[in-house]
Order: sequence, then C-alpha cells, then structure tokens
Amino acid sequence: MTSRSEDYSQWYIDLVKKADLAENSDVRGCMVIKPYGYSIWEKMQQALDKMFKETGHVNAYFPLFIPKSFLSKEAQHVEGFAKECAVVTHHRLKNDPNGKGVIVDPEAKLEEELIVRPTSETIIWNTYKDWIQSYRDLPILINQWANVVRWEMRTRPFLRTTEFLWQEGHTAHATDAEAIEETAKIHELYTRFVEDFMAVPVIKGRKTASERFAGAVETYTIEAMMQDKKALQAGTSHFLGQNFAKAFDVTYLTEKNQNEYVWATSWGVSTRLVGGLIMTHSDDDGLILPPRMAPTQVAIVPIPKPTPAINDAVIKLVQALKAKGISVVYDMDERNRPGYKFAEHEMKGVPIRIGVGQRDLDQNQVEIARRDTKTKSMVSLDGVNEFVSDLLEQMQNDLFNKAKKFREENSHQVDSYKEFIERIEEGGFFHCHWDGTPETEARIKEETKATIRCIPLDQVKEEGKCMVTGEKSEGRVIFARAY
Amino acid sequence: MTSRSEDYSQWYIDLVKKADLAENSDVRGCMVIKPYGYSIWEKMQQALDKMFKETGHVNAYFPLFIPKSFLSKEAQHVEGFAKECAVVTHHRLKNDPNGKGVIVDPEAKLEEELIVRPTSETIIWNTYKDWIQSYRDLPILINQWANVVRWEMRTRPFLRTTEFLWQEGHTAHATDAEAIEETAKIHELYTRFVEDFMAVPVIKGRKTASERFAGAVETYTIEAMMQDKKALQAGTSHFLGQNFAKAFDVTYLTEKNQNEYVWATSWGVSTRLVGGLIMTHSDDDGLILPPRMAPTQVAIVPIPKPTPAINDAVIKLVQALKAKGISVVYDMDERNRPGYKFAEHEMKGVPIRIGVGQRDLDQNQVEIARRDTKTKSMVSLDGVNEFVSDLLEQMQNDLFNKAKKFREENSHQVDSYKEFIERIEEGGFFHCHWDGTPETEARIKEETKATIRCIPLDQVKEEGKCMVTGEKSEGRVIFARAY
Repeated sequence: MTSRSEDYSQWYIDLVKKADLAENSDVRGCMVIKPYGYSIWEKMQQALDKMFKETGHVNAYFPLFIPKSFLSKEAQHVEGFAKECAVVTHHRLKNDPNGKGVIVDPEAKLEEELIVRPTSETIIWNTYKDWIQSYRDLPILINQWANVVRWEMRTRPFLRTTEFLWQEGHTAHATDAEAIEETAKIHELYTRFVEDFMAVPVIKGRKTASERFAGAVETYTIEAMMQDKKALQAGTSHFLGQNFAKAFDVTYLTEKNQNEYVWATSWGVSTRLVGGLIMTHSDDDGLILPPRMAPTQVAIVPIPKPTPAINDAVIKLVQALKAKGISVVYDMDERNRPGYKFAEHEMKGVPIRIGVGQRDLDQNQVEIARRDTKTKSMVSLDGVNEFVSDLLEQMQNDLFNKAKKFREENSHQVDSYKEFIERIEEGGFFHCHWDGTPETEARIKEETKATIRCIPLDQVKEEGKCMVTGEKSEGRVIFARAY
Repeated sequence: MTSRSEDYSQWYIDLVKKADLAENSDVRGCMVIKPYGYSIWEKMQQALDKMFKETGHVNAYFPLFIPKSFLSKEAQHVEGFAKECAVVTHHRLKNDPNGKGVIVDPEAKLEEELIVRPTSETIIWNTYKDWIQSYRDLPILINQWANVVRWEMRTRPFLRTTEFLWQEGHTAHATDAEAIEETAKIHELYTRFVEDFMAVPVIKGRKTASERFAGAVETYTIEAMMQDKKALQAGTSHFLGQNFAKAFDVTYLTEKNQNEYVWATSWGVSTRLVGGLIMTHSDDDGLILPPRMAPTQVAIVPIPKPTPAINDAVIKLVQALKAKGISVVYDMDERNRPGYKFAEHEMKGVPIRIGVGQRDLDQNQVEIARRDTKTKSMVSLDGVNEFVSDLLEQMQNDLFNKAKKFREENSHQVDSYKEFIERIEEGGFFHCHWDGTPETEARIKEETKATIRCIPLDQVKEEGKCMVTGEKSEGRVIFARAY
C-alpha cells in the first residue's frame, strides 16, 4: 500500500480497495459499495436516524425523477443543479432490427424529460403545496434516505461519485424564526454526530454567498480537516427562506386568517462521510475506526490456532463482551495464521484485537492490542470486559483529541497575502481577514485554489484589514483547499 | 370512504389516501410514500433485515444505472426486463437559447445509454466476475435495499408503481445443491415474515415456466389471497442456475483445480407488501394492522380531555406499556374531541385504543377497544400492561386465522372448465388439474384472465385429467386472477 507521505491521494485509493470498502463500477463515476464499506454507512444511518427521530422528524419517500420544468422554477437552484445531471428521455428499448442487442425505441420518447434527482427540493415543494393549507399543517419535519445523481467529471470513491447515498431533510415552517431554529438545530445535530460518533472535530460556520447551496438564503456547514490538511465539508444545513415556497406557490393560512408563504430548510449528509472518516484517522497499515463507528469492535484471534481449551475460554469472553454491548468476532478460520489475521484486522480498522494463547491462558490472561497506537497489554481474564469497554471509550476520545490537535497545529492566522500564497501550499486552515466581497473571494480561489470554508460561528470580532485588498474586515474567515 | 362491497378497488384507493399512506406524484406512475406509509415499510425493513443478517447475509450497494449492453447478455432476461424501462441518454441540460427554462444539451449525449435498474442481476454479476476466483471466495450472500424502476402503464399505489422500493438478494455458490438450498431457505424466510409478522397466510409453490423470473431456472413464490379473492404474489426466490454466470463469464477454481461456472440465486420483496398488508386485513372504517406491523400499537385518548389526574394516570400507563416493549402514543391534542380521535386511530389501524376518563379512573379502570373486532372491555389498571400485551398477541393470531379461514372458504377444487369459467368471476383460488403445457396455460389466461399462481409445494399426487384438454395430470395447480 502506498504510504501517506508518498502520495496521500493514492494511499486513500489503495486503502479503500485493500480494506474492501468500495470499488469503481463499470458505470462511469458510480461505485460499488462493498459489504464492509456499507456496514460503516449502516452504522452512520442508524445513529443519525435515531437522532432525527428523537428531534421529531419522520421519514418519507419522494420520486427519483424530477420533471425538467420543476428544476427551472427556482432561479438560483436551476443554475446550481440543472446542469450536469442524468436525463431520462425515453421509456422503452426494443430489439435491434439490424442485429443483436437492444436499441432505444424512438417512439417511446417522453413528452417531458425526467431528471434523476440531484437533490429533492423541487419535487418535495411541489408535493408540500398540496399538504399545506393552514398553520395547523405546520411544521412538516421530513427526512428521506435516498440515492442521488450528479454527473461528476472527476470522481473518487465516497468523496465524489456520480451516484451517492444520502439523507436529505426538508422541513416547512410557519415563521422564519422557526425555520432558522430548525437549521441551527440540525447544524448542531450534525456536529454532535460527526464529533461524538465519528471522532472527527469540526468547525461550525456559515458559507459565503458564493459557496451557498443553490436556492438557500443561508448555508451552515461543518468543516473537518483531513490528514493532508485539506478541508472536507462534512454536512450542510440550509435556511431556504421562502424561495421554494414562492417558486412552487406554497402558502398557508395564518391563525389570523392571512395567506403567507411557508418557510423552509433542507439539510443533508452523504456517503462522503465514509470518505471523511477514513481520511481523518487511518494510517499506512490500513483503516482506523473510532469504536462507535466500527462494525466489529473486537476481533479475537487464537494463538496459534483454535483448540478446545482456547475455544472454551473465548466463548466465555465473547459472552462477557456481548453482555456489555460490544460487537465481537472470533476469527477461528484455520486456513490463516495469526500474523495474516493481525494484518487483516489492522487493515479493516478493528479497534481492539485480543490474542488468546494457551501459555497466557495458563496464567489467566490474554493479550490486548489497540489498533490506533499499536500498543499491547497483558490483561487478566477477570474483568477483561471492563478493561475492553473502558479502552474503547478511551480510544474514541483519543482519536478525537488527536485529530483536534492535528487541526490546531495546522491552523494559522495569516495577515499577508504573500505569506498566504506561500503557506497554502503546505495545506491547513488559514484564519484571515477578508473584505467580504465575492470578487476578492474569487480572486483568491483563482490564484491559490483555496476557498472560504466558512465564516466561523465563534468568529471573534476583531478590527483588521483584508489580506488582499487592505479593506476593512471585522473578523477572520477560514480559508483552505478542500475536497 | 367507498365500502369494499361497493367497489373494492376504489375502497383501496380511498383508504391509502385517508390513512395518509401514499399519494400519486406529478411524476407519471411514481408515488410519494407519506410518513405513515413509510413507517410501515420501515417496520418491514427492520424485521427482514434482521432475518437476512441472522441467516448470514450482508448488505451492499450497486449502481442505479445499468449500461444498455449488459441487459442483452442474458437472452431471457433482456426479453423480460429491457422493454419498459427508463433510459438515460444525456448527462447535461443547458439554458434554452430561445427563451426560458432549460433544454437537453444535444452535445451531452452518452456513448452508451444507461438504464435505470429494473432489477440488478446484470450489474451485480458483472461485478461478481472480479470478486470470484476460487471456491474460497464462495458463497457470496449479499442483499441490497434499493429503488428500482419498471415503466408501468397502469399503476396503483404500492401494488404497481413505476418506481418502487425493495430488497434484492443476489447470492453466488459453488454448487447447484447449495444454490437450491439458499433459494429454499429464503422462500421459507419470506413465508415466516409474511405469515408471522404481517399475519398474511400464504401458499408456497413453484411458478410455471411462463411465469418464471426472466433468466431463472426455477422461481419459488408465496401467494396470498386478498379480500376481493384475488391473488397477490408476495415474494419470490429464484434459482438462477448458471445462466448469469455464463452470460457474464463468472467461473471459479474448484478444490480440484477445475474451472466451473458459479451457481446463483436472487430474491426480493418490495413496497408491494404494504399494499398486500392493507388489502388483507382492513375494513370499511380504515386500516387494520397486525400488532407486529403497527408503528403505533396503542393509542391512549383522554375522555373527554386531558386533566392533571388523567395525565398522571396516563403517564404511569405509558411507562408500564413501554416497559413491555409496546409502542404507545398519548393523544392529548386538545383541539380534537374523543370521537374525532377514535375515528382517526381507527382509520390508521392502531390495534388498541385505551380511553381514560375520570369516572373510570375513580373505579381504577380504563376502557380498552380493539381495532379489528371493535369490541371493548373495561380493564382494571392493575395488570393492564399484561392485558394489553396478551391482547396484542391474540390479535396477531386472530388476524392470521381470520385471513386463513377466508382463504380456505374461497378455495375450490374444480374439475370442469365450464364450471371454472363461471366461478372464476366470483374470485378465489381454484385447485385444478392442468396438462402441464404452456399452450393450455395461455388459453386459460386468455379466456378467463386467470393465471397459474403456483404449483404448490405440498401438492398431493393425484391422478386426474386437465380440465381443458382432458390430458393426464398428476396433481392440482392453483389458478386465480391476480394483482
């Protein structure tokens, strides 16, 4: 496997392949998510779905296809999403009269083309129109788990694929205050999920106008730093104002019997998070998974192979760990040696490995190895479940703190554009003054490939001068190159 | 709401709408699954996913799009699936130079058209080719939860829609015996799910050649009877032989170092099951859900409205029920009267309603009403959780037995084609002798709209004569009109 220092990008590709997470398919830009990769996505889905439901959201399902005309209804939205997309134009194939195979039946042309959804605001607001009459119908708090398609030129497993899996929340509210509160609530929910479950520290902020979701009044983002010091947008929550309500004519009767447009939010995270998880923690020997995201938390390996006495001890151990809610596998495949198994569990990022050998058992102990630090301890079988449970907790925290320390070490305040241009090459988050204009933002992007990741919510009010134009600035924003 | 006796088909449409399960979208043939309908699908998914995993299956995800040429590789498959489908021909829209809106960019024509998957055998076997080298790579036991599209002319919510949600299992095996065992295992798993969770009795059988899945060697089915005495195919499990392995050239090295084609199965159930669930149990007042499929099992209604004393009693009641794993809601909305609430919970098929009024509380009791029989009992608050728990179990069994009795009362042995032609009009399952030829089968379908639902697995060996041709037959098959 390519090392990170050699070629970070190739390391990532190699790791995705070797850890059996995903692979490119024969369909341009689409990946196959392999069972192990999918099981990580399932862990994410379970945790998020629970959080959505605890905050009053329900799931529903809207059509995959969007009539072409719907996309044109919101002016900014069409600019952002109606360009690179999959267009369904026909609904039938027929046998090729000139030979083998099938051809598109020209007689089965659709009257109006259908777009495979790149996001569902339009089809959903077209539906909400019929669901909302009065204030009593509000709020609507709906989430959808779905696949979406955006025709991408350059793709990378999980991080950018033509088809990807995601959840998209679409809520409708009677007032702007309520919708803004919802946007903030989800922004915080995403932060809790990414930090507490994925052990990935994030910076909460607002996007600049030019980086906003197409059709949003305000986009809130969480931004994480990968090990190559590039930024990854990990989730976004949009306050849509009344833009989609106006585009689809969705009004409601207030308690005072007046007609008003409905207020909206939308928000989503995707399989891209799997890419972010991989890139934040893993090393040159393979995947490192925080325990709360690991499909298997503990792998038990018999040394050198299973015997009745070892099996007997392992069965008790498995029961004790399962009773603690720990997921565990006993790797008793006799075709492979311990060394092979160790490497495989390391590659797959299993947080804890327990080696069980007869000599250790005679001393009532087992060897416990942690994946992240590679440190090993001999642990007494009495209370081993407590030890493992505590260690998993410890690892979850350590991974978060390590990633946070890394981000802090690679975050800089820079006031000179010359210095910025030099240092952006080495990567990192740059806290800089900016004059607030899209022109300066565009120039910086053009000249350095760095974008404003966000205007941090905890921005300190500080008189300063834009590093490019010298114009007034009241606080620093965060620049970085990003995925 | 239209009654069943008046117009069964309209009753179904009305019920789907009034119980807030789904609605037609503005995309031809596609439905919107509303939150309540989706929550029933989620119950199905949870139970099935657990059963799949307990039998060694894992989830994965394959692309939505299938290159057109893939569909032609298996001769029968292309006949069955490459006809009415959604065809993606372009990957870009552009602003209409002649006016408003967007048009398809003619320069963005795909070299090869992509088909939105109607089922995934082809893309999956094209992938398995790279995953399978030797017997050590087998078996592969993969399931996928996904949306699929089949361009349907006449659609009906849940039962037949252009886009629908389903799971599709695709397994690969070293021997025919193993693949056949897998096919049977899933056939039995589906039976357990539909009978034990959905309380829908089914007949297990094999499809005739003409009713088989396109590309299958053998298709196993479970067939249920709806209240209008029509049949619903509730799930199918296919033994695919080596058809797809040969089409995609998937071979493996045996232990004896020989190259052999891999054996395959595929199997699926879909959101159609939601339609079957509705049609089996519900009545003219709305949905009836078996307790194991009910998102809410108990609704508590304060009579006539919440008071501190009633709330206090309800809180204890809710805790006691939740401790038993029963899902319960307290409907304390003060805007609606009890009668309105009763009707609403009936419409939504909540199995048990508990009315809590002060007069009853003074006597330490509450009123418990079951949705299916509409019977009510006064129950002492002491042990009410036991009572409810037992009642839910009872209702689950009663609904199954009622549906089974209905099916038995409407199943007939008929030996004369004249009688068959007359009686098929009244509906039901007809156990008849058939000469085993596709010609006779086609004639019966043409003349009566009845199809052979299955050759039952428990078919009794019985010398007989085909009701149409008088040719020899060794056992009865089941005819019915079907959804």
